[in-house]
Amino acid sequence: ELAALLEQMFNVDTLTGKTVVITAGPTREAIDPVRYLSNHSSGKMGYALAEAAAEAGARTILISGPCQLAPPERVEHIKVISADDMLAACLGYAAGSDLFIGAAAVADFRPANIAEQKLKKSDADTMTLTLVKNPDIIASVAALDAAPFTVAFAAESERVLEYARDKLVRKKVDCVIANDISAAGIGFNSDDNAVTLIDRRGETRFDQRSKPQLARELIALLAERL
Amino acid sequence: ELAALLEQMFNVDTLTGKTVVITAGPTREAIDPVRYLSNHSSGKMGYALAEAAAEAGARTILISGPCQLAPPERVEHIKVISADDMLAACLGYAAGSDLFIGAAAVADFRPANIAEQKLKKSDADTMTLTLVKNPDIIASVAALDAAPFTVAFAAESERVLEYARDKLVRKKVDCVIANDISAAGIGFNSDDNAVTLIDRRGETRFDQRSKPQLARELIALLAERL
Repeated sequence: ELAALLEQMFNVDTLTGKTVVITAGPTREAIDPVRYLSNHSSGKMGYALAEAAAEAGARTILISGPCQLAPPERVEHIKVISADDMLAACLGYAAGSDLFIGAAAVADFRPANIAEQKLKKSDADTMTLTLVKNPDIIASVAALDAAPFTVAFAAESERVLEYARDKLVRKKVDCVIANDISAAGIGFNSDDNAVTLIDRRGETRFDQRSKPQLARELIALLAERL
Repeated sequence: ELAALLEQMFNVDTLTGKTVVITAGPTREAIDPVRYLSNHSSGKMGYALAEAAAEAGARTILISGPCQLAPPERVEHIKVISADDMLAACLGYAAGSDLFIGAAAVADFRPANIAEQKLKKSDADTMTLTLVKNPDIIASVAALDAAPFTVAFAAESERVLEYARDKLVRKKVDCVIANDISAAGIGFNSDDNAVTLIDRRGETRFDQRSKPQLARELIALLAERL
């Protein structure tokens, strides 16, 4: 408690005058008027980061897919559904901002066609759903002319650091935060997380702690890089 | 308010000594450890029916997919995720029960294979997801030797009554409750609903009203059929 309070006091004003854009939660990709594809992201990590950024004095914009969390105070809360919606919101807010953190679990693929009517169960025992790749939101933000310092999350269930290092290069982002979603007690829908922050300087490990605590430490570290 | 109170008083004891099993909410069908297929069912109609059945004196078992609602008092709340889970729970509780109402929006299809690791975004711009038909929970319950009086919901966005009448015959159920999910203000995720109850005696129309109110009227009508 005291440590957390001290942490919070040190964080005050480290982001004053800065604009931070954070994505959180899953996206939902419509199949038809009732069905969709989604994922188990709870939004907790992104919401905790938004709270920590606002505590540190930033104008904070939280662009969130459908989740059950209440937005933190002093945070601008933009609600979106699909990856396409999220991309549009991100490009609008990220240009000219100082820090962008992509903590949302954006669906990689969406159905190629959205049926206008509810699909009927056919007599066939199988059906195939054709999916097309969604836009890469973080790479799009990192490629902006006035790109902010851009941070990607890499939620992986195997070869976590290897995939994360690859993501740093491939998406041309400034930093990747890798977490192992196969480990019990951390990651998707958990209250705790453990991550490795990877940038061109090296790797910083954060062992398991609460998402709010981790968020404050990550924001403090990222504030030094701006 | 007075009408609702009278309705509630009339309902008291109409189901005393009876066991009612109700399904509610969506099901979630895993694609891999993080991704799933689901639908927009809020569970409100099924939860309202469970509350009304308990008010009417029934031992009430609510078998619910993932949703955000608190279970009503005096209701046994069985939480499930997938259609397969829901089928197992339904067969266990429905045998020997008096009334079964399938209000859940069960996924018609699930991925043919559940990947053990998070699927990697490939370089391909499209992918196909092969789906297989889920078990038909309501038809399975209706086919039990000691089948309860079985009620199916038919949530449709077009040709609502036609599809519902077909469902009555095809699933060999005792009654179908049809609702038009394309109409504004009713159906999926709304607080109100408007339905047509269809059985071999004919059709009874319930115009738009709150789901709790509609649930009490439906339970009162169904109690007469047992």
